[in-house]
Amino acid sequence: MTMHKLTQEILKQTITKRANTTHKGDYGRILIIGGTEQYGGAIIMNALAAVNSGAGLVTVATHPSNFSALHSHLPEAMVTDYTQDLAPFITKADVILIGSGLGEQLSILTATLSKVKPEQILILDGSALTLLAEHQLDLPNARLILTPHQMEWQRLSQTEIAEQTPAKNLAALATFTPTPILVLKKFQTEIYTADQIFQLTIGGPYQATGGMGDTLAGMIAGFTGQFHASLEQAVLAAVYAHSAIADDLARERYVVLPTQISAEIPKLMHQYAQKTGS
Amino acid sequence: MTMHKLTQEILKQTITKRANTTHKGDYGRILIIGGTEQYGGAIIMNALAAVNSGAGLVTVATHPSNFSALHSHLPEAMVTDYTQDLAPFITKADVILIGSGLGEQLSILTATLSKVKPEQILILDGSALTLLAEHQLDLPNARLILTPHQMEWQRLSQTEIAEQTPAKNLAALATFTPTPILVLKKFQTEIYTADQIFQLTIGGPYQATGGMGDTLAGMIAGFTGQFHASLEQAVLAAVYAHSAIADDLARERYVVLPTQISAEIPKLMHQYAQKTGS
Amino acid sequence: MTMHKLTQEILKQTITKRANTTHKGDYGRILIIGGTEQYGGAIIMNALAAVNSGAGLVTVATHPSNFSALHSHLPEAMVTDYTQDLAPFITKADVILIGSGLGEQLSILTATLSKVKPEQILILDGSALTLLAEHQLDLPNARLILTPHQMEWQRLSQTEIAEQTPAKNLAALATFTPTPILVLKKFQTEIYTADQIFQLTIGGPYQATGGMGDTLAGMIAGFTGQFHASLEQAVLAAVYAHSAIADDLARERYVVLPTQISAEIPKLMHQYAQKTGS
Amino acid sequence: MTMHKLTQEILKQTITKRANTTHKGDYGRILIIGGTEQYGGAIIMNALAAVNSGAGLVTVATHPSNFSALHSHLPEAMVTDYTQDLAPFITKADVILIGSGLGEQLSILTATLSKVKPEQILILDGSALTLLAEHQLDLPNARLILTPHQMEWQRLSQTEIAEQTPAKNLAALATFTPTPILVLKKFQTEIYTADQIFQLTIGGPYQATGGMGDTLAGMIAGFTGQFHASLEQAVLAAVYAHSAIADDLARERYVVLPTQISAEIPKLMHQYAQKTGS
Repeated sequence: MTMHKLTQEILKQTITKRANTTHKGDYGRILIIGGTEQYGGAIIMNALAAVNSGAGLVTVATHPSNFSALHSHLPEAMVTDYTQDLAPFITKADVILIGSGLGEQLSILTATLSKVKPEQILILDGSALTLLAEHQLDLPNARLILTPHQMEWQRLSQTEIAEQTPAKNLAALATFTPTPILVLKKFQTEIYTADQIFQLTIGGPYQATGGMGDTLAGMIAGFTGQFHASLEQAVLAAVYAHSAIADDLARERYVVLPTQISAEIPKLMHQYAQKTGS
Repeated sequence: MTMHKLTQEILKQTITKRANTTHKGDYGRILIIGGTEQYGGAIIMNALAAVNSGAGLVTVATHPSNFSALHSHLPEAMVTDYTQDLAPFITKADVILIGSGLGEQLSILTATLSKVKPEQILILDGSALTLLAEHQLDLPNARLILTPHQMEWQRLSQTEIAEQTPAKNLAALATFTPTPILVLKKFQTEIYTADQIFQLTIGGPYQATGGMGDTLAGMIAGFTGQFHASLEQAVLAAVYAHSAIADDLARERYVVLPTQISAEIPKLMHQYAQKTGS
Repeated sequence: MTMHKLTQEILKQTITKRANTTHKGDYGRILIIGGTEQYGGAIIMNALAAVNSGAGLVTVATHPSNFSALHSHLPEAMVTDYTQDLAPFITKADVILIGSGLGEQLSILTATLSKVKPEQILILDGSALTLLAEHQLDLPNARLILTPHQMEWQRLSQTEIAEQTPAKNLAALATFTPTPILVLKKFQTEIYTADQIFQLTIGGPYQATGGMGDTLAGMIAGFTGQFHASLEQAVLAAVYAHSAIADDLARERYVVLPTQISAEIPKLMHQYAQKTGS
Repeated sequence: MTMHKLTQEILKQTITKRANTTHKGDYGRILIIGGTEQYGGAIIMNALAAVNSGAGLVTVATHPSNFSALHSHLPEAMVTDYTQDLAPFITKADVILIGSGLGEQLSILTATLSKVKPEQILILDGSALTLLAEHQLDLPNARLILTPHQMEWQRLSQTEIAEQTPAKNLAALATFTPTPILVLKKFQTEIYTADQIFQLTIGGPYQATGGMGDTLAGMIAGFTGQFHASLEQAVLAAVYAHSAIADDLARERYVVLPTQISAEIPKLMHQYAQKTGS
């Protein structure tokens, strides 16, 4: 099985020039669901990443105790209480990201899974992946993206970390219906589609800090909500951009904070954006 | 019907040199009404724009859950609970901006409309425009400014987006009493007065993100509260300045966030301000 | 009556080199009392100014709804509920600043006035001045500083703004016991001691925005808490520094925000600090 | 007794190059316990310092009123209510920092001391030291670090400040079991191990402001959680780095704020980090 190594070409291919007559509705309505009272920072990092990636409209469904801190960072996002009925929000969303800091909120996850439609993009991150594995939940029919780290993938795929070879990962992925895109977070993160494997060869241990994955999940939401040519390509570009920014910041920092990455997204995207119309 | 294209001349004409003996009372008492618990970010963006535009005193009437995040951004603004009697605040205001993130709060809108006086500037934005259309409310006798995007204008004017030609827009506008200034937000935003049409030819799709209009509404409040020579000119200058800053930021950003625009307003205004006293 | 024009010499004379063996207790324990739920921004601006001026320890007694936004700006400050007994805080303070955003909280003011000791510095600002005038309260025996704008001084001194000449202001000031230092805020702010008048000739209308006075009051608290050679000199230096920073920022800004001034205080102080030990 | 003067060599020796295959679990799970409603800023400063030092995962147990302001600064940290059972958090921690802004919360301190295990690093700061002295609590069997200023050390060691000579400090330290590392904060801070004394000869009175010690405690937590070669060396490096940054900032500031120090940590660490693998 060949692993395709990602290069900056993925950014050039993916980040299209925006047409003049477009409006915010064209760049994705993102619904982010997560953040218990204890893990509220996770959805703040999700949302900062999504908005800075150029998402058109971002709504965050979370514990109300997180509203104020979220708005302190990002008045650009809207909020709603995640214990209320989320159906009206799910219906309007192009992309749903669920799981960062979701903790043990199983009923919110199952209610969401039951309402997602096939044409919607559904990103499952963090606690959502653990809940999926623990409760052996079925995945809904949607355009699925899973973003586990190795331990979460072990739980989901029942493949021990030491056994997580490309072949076994592909085989495990094939047992899910419909087949998700798998972003397996590790040193040199691997991205699996139904029949291809891509590998990240940038990034580094200066990213080994809490919240880094929440920022990545938010970028995937932002990119997939606006770059419609190929879901796979949008995911690959988000993964590459996330570490490209980290590498750049690490030129003068021993560690890189997730929120610092989000602040740099608009500049990186500008640097690689296509200069002529699509 | 000629469309006058806006240029940077509008900034030079409008942004007067401040006289030494003036004080904050000379630069506008702005009352901003909006921001439900879910849409609190909207009034934060309103207020950041108004204060950075040079408003003398800004009070925000909103849901109390938004006080803390607003003050995290902007201790310069005062706050009050929008469910309490707003009459004392309305009485003291030179400019009232109502509607950004107001949601379904009809009674707050109608109470406000009933108290506005003819010499006051009233800016109607966002949800206020939708409520006006849905409930067929009468406009009060005041110096009116409407800031709809095309869909909101469709609801208000009963003119389909595809039919929104300059002639039809002018005709629809003439049905309102007194005639408002209309800021029709779109690609190349158009500004209508009773007998003239102006067009913005700057700005771009890097502005296609939630909250951009809230920032524009706040700038219009800030500009109209302090530049008294002509209400129309103050509106035109605010609209132009908003996109001029966006264009400048977009030289190195793929997307431009509303809060980034507000942070740049004092520098842009300095650049175009008249150097000699008025 | 000669008016002494303030120059940057006041900064050079006042801002002493800190001795190596000093600690935070040497630079002033400041108690700031103010900030209703509606005016919470005022004490945030007070505290930002005091801490950035080099105050050793700052405690803010305010409405609890303001704690979170204050800490979002400034974890360096401590907080307490201003409706609780403030006696333990007043006892420990070197400088007490009361009144910014205090609104109608008369009982907090009178309780504070009754507990201040002669050796303490008491700065009365904003609402405290209005309450003093309205309720004809006696000033306590303390090292007093009043920071009214012209209308507040009119209320306090019963001298109409048009009548506020140096001679009349001095005469009115002499009716207070003990004689306070008066900072009369206006274009070319005047500072009165028992027998001298100083005038600010810097600053400008880019400072005409809400909160500017709250920042000045916080700077006076910070300066008087740490520069012990002369109370008068510390006040003069704070007033001069406040506008010197504004002038500097105004070189590229049409308006200057109070919080922007606070952020620059440590740099200005460094620039004028004595380079050799006192 | 020789005092070893600390130099930048301690940074070069301590700050190792991170191995590529490491993850956040390798860089320390830090539990910070402190921050009453009144002193919430202290744990914000702890956490900012720990995260910016490169801690892998930081959880803050504090009064719930502090959650929002903490997340406004640092969504990277997780939170929990410090009045709830902390056992599950203590069990998972590599480093526990308790005491900054803890006030009179004796039961939280005793519950924590009773659960710490010998292999865990326990940093006792601020109020925890005062409570230890007042209630003559026993220290638990753990890898202990005490961070008193001179008055706190007087209370703990019953040695008057004027009597705190190196010999007496060493002798007093030997009465604790197990022997802690002592960071005695003063002009030219001294660090005592069981048999050695180190002295800081950098830093200055521009650091004499509230919260400076909270930032230092957070840095010690961050450094000891990730640099495993020697606990002593990690403490020394944190102490040195804290003042090295202050000195650098003081080149253009009269005073240096604790939060400004934290923001610079990643850059200082990069500057001194070993360039080749360990």
